[in-house]
Amino acid sequence: MSINYKELAQKYQTPYYVYDFDYITNQYNELKESFKARKSLIAYALKANSNLSVIKHLAQLGAGADCVSIGEVKRALKVGIPPYKIIFSGVGKIDGEIQEALEFDILMINVESAAELNRVEKIAKELGKVARISIRVNPNIDPKTHPYISTGLHENKFGVDIDTAKRMYIQCNNSEFLEPVGIHCHIGSQLTQLQPIKESVQIIADLVRNLKAIKIELSFMDVGGGLGIIYDDEKLIDTYEYAQAVLESMFGLDITVVCEPGRFIVGNAGTFVTKVLYEKVNGEKRFVIVDGAMNDLIRPSLYNAYHKVEVLNNNNELSKCNLVGPICESGDFFAKDITLPKTEHNDLIAIHSAGAYGFVMSSNYNTRGRVAEIAVENGKDRLIRKRESFEDIIALEEEFIK
Amino acid sequence: MSINYKELAQKYQTPYYVYDFDYITNQYNELKESFKARKSLIAYALKANSNLSVIKHLAQLGAGADCVSIGEVKRALKVGIPPYKIIFSGVGKIDGEIQEALEFDILMINVESAAELNRVEKIAKELGKVARISIRVNPNIDPKTHPYISTGLHENKFGVDIDTAKRMYIQCNNSEFLEPVGIHCHIGSQLTQLQPIKESVQIIADLVRNLKAIKIELSFMDVGGGLGIIYDDEKLIDTYEYAQAVLESMFGLDITVVCEPGRFIVGNAGTFVTKVLYEKVNGEKRFVIVDGAMNDLIRPSLYNAYHKVEVLNNNNELSKCNLVGPICESGDFFAKDITLPKTEHNDLIAIHSAGAYGFVMSSNYNTRGRVAEIAVENGKDRLIRKRESFEDIIALEEEFIK
Repeated sequence: MSINYKELAQKYQTPYYVYDFDYITNQYNELKESFKARKSLIAYALKANSNLSVIKHLAQLGAGADCVSIGEVKRALKVGIPPYKIIFSGVGKIDGEIQEALEFDILMINVESAAELNRVEKIAKELGKVARISIRVNPNIDPKTHPYISTGLHENKFGVDIDTAKRMYIQCNNSEFLEPVGIHCHIGSQLTQLQPIKESVQIIADLVRNLKAIKIELSFMDVGGGLGIIYDDEKLIDTYEYAQAVLESMFGLDITVVCEPGRFIVGNAGTFVTKVLYEKVNGEKRFVIVDGAMNDLIRPSLYNAYHKVEVLNNNNELSKCNLVGPICESGDFFAKDITLPKTEHNDLIAIHSAGAYGFVMSSNYNTRGRVAEIAVENGKDRLIRKRESFEDIIALEEEFIK
Repeated sequence: MSINYKELAQKYQTPYYVYDFDYITNQYNELKESFKARKSLIAYALKANSNLSVIKHLAQLGAGADCVSIGEVKRALKVGIPPYKIIFSGVGKIDGEIQEALEFDILMINVESAAELNRVEKIAKELGKVARISIRVNPNIDPKTHPYISTGLHENKFGVDIDTAKRMYIQCNNSEFLEPVGIHCHIGSQLTQLQPIKESVQIIADLVRNLKAIKIELSFMDVGGGLGIIYDDEKLIDTYEYAQAVLESMFGLDITVVCEPGRFIVGNAGTFVTKVLYEKVNGEKRFVIVDGAMNDLIRPSLYNAYHKVEVLNNNNELSKCNLVGPICESGDFFAKDITLPKTEHNDLIAIHSAGAYGFVMSSNYNTRGRVAEIAVENGKDRLIRKRESFEDIIALEEEFIK
């Protein structure tokens, strides 16, 4: 991709997020293609980047939606993803959310606890509807990723164990308001090892066979998402090998494979671009201070995440520094002890691999407006979210001043 | 304080933040009173909780405002804090922010680097104005708090060392567009030890005397904020002893003391109230899942912060659990391995000490609308920020769908 960051900075000011929609197309197609031996649904995980234009772009490619709140379901519907391609997951669904999901008639509700299944049954009964159910199995497998984004161990809050799942499927089968249609597992995010995925997919495939033996036939096997991307020098799982491992586990089963990529699709499509305000030296320590901050991109602060940093100038005087924002806490940094060229006021800095879990986690901390989002497609740029103004920020509290 | 959380939940739904305005009054008055031996300005640090009604309440008590963005300056002005009580701090001020601050004619700009002083001078010159300057001194003192909220060491990005400060004051004195009026230090947040504060205040008081000797007379000595509060079992700094230590350092100086409390004023005025959705057990692990999440209150996840948790039911069956939200990552928790009573669907849980760095850091992660904020004053409740709707969340991106 070749994006002219300077031109975009002049046109839209800084800081901004820019997403390469052609890259998104390629990632989607690569995954879809690797599953071509079977019926498959690539349900994009909106939580990674839920900008309406991003979802619309994926909708046009044929993607479904993996949603974790009714807000995300509404986003998917808004841009034309048909209900029969929408899945609603998450450990804590609120009654009103379950009700709306049933009314929207989405593909299935991914249930994560026995208590939740009872709520869904109760609400479906009240509505006189049949809820299509998928059950998230927690295979108790260590995905070997950051603890905050690891989800497939019993010590995590996600899913239910095999035995509980089996009981829940039987409950579904016996209820006139529940219909068991799918099974799901997802062991974590930013996965770089195939073996844990293989093992967990095998576990749920075995359960599908056991259920079949007692005449519970599922139509969808959702193998989750979590495929890692390159931030630094990670060795990735080969997409084709991944698909083969998944498909092998399903041997002999007449079932549609569902996959829920988020970061894999959008992570490296996005860049966060910020402008140098000042350089300063405190004691021995050099700081490069930019106009972007932790409220815009919290991953370095929250997960100690690495993002490749590129200074867009021609200076060759290199030295170590901390790259920090204007927010009043020491947790506000993008990189520590990184080697960067000397910078001048207004030099641009690109922070790469920021397309996933970037803008969606941004806040108004320090009364900073959230930044603009830009799409680039076929060499053309366009705004896909307006920069937030002071008036936008106070809109919901202004009327209450007395 | 006696707030009826259940009544508020019925009236405003959950989750919500509620703030006790009478408590805020008491905290403000306690601090103001302890400085009564001198002219003083209590400049409330808006970053802790910048709800317009909270600021208005403090404005009516006579508070000034410590702001770290032009957005915060605008909030202060909006609710009637006069410009001559407003300070603009922060390591990364954008040119446009400096310009607006000069046009608003606020009390002083708190400058944090030599490069920034040059920018301010240049912009003041362009506007034909004189910029009133305070310089933030980094005293290189360890405040003994969480690394993310520690700010007074040279390894932190904040302020300048004594020698740099001195040179900057001389630059101010020689410039027709700069007027040196104040000095500032702030070594961190949630401080519980007086000694580091004493030492740093002594350092800047000495600098004030040295400057006086070369005929640079400052009018404001800003001793920062950072007074700790009780989250768990912290032993606090006594407010009176704190004020005495500060006032002693100023002996013989004709100078107004400025103090910038944030958390001290609002931290324990606020409670985050959330509702139980489900309980579940994974393996040996019990989880209580509530409708609030890390997007509403990120302190446990980001700082590993402790918040006292109170379950509002009458159950006595206690056991250990993790208290978690619906967001799809394991980092979404309020407390881990905490002993709580058995809960039922819709039981309320109060998460205390949430008045500071709570709502202001909240986001729309997982397309979750930000929650309602409520004030209680003289036994009466009122909404001070509306719950965010789906339409609010997508307002700035909807028009760009093509």
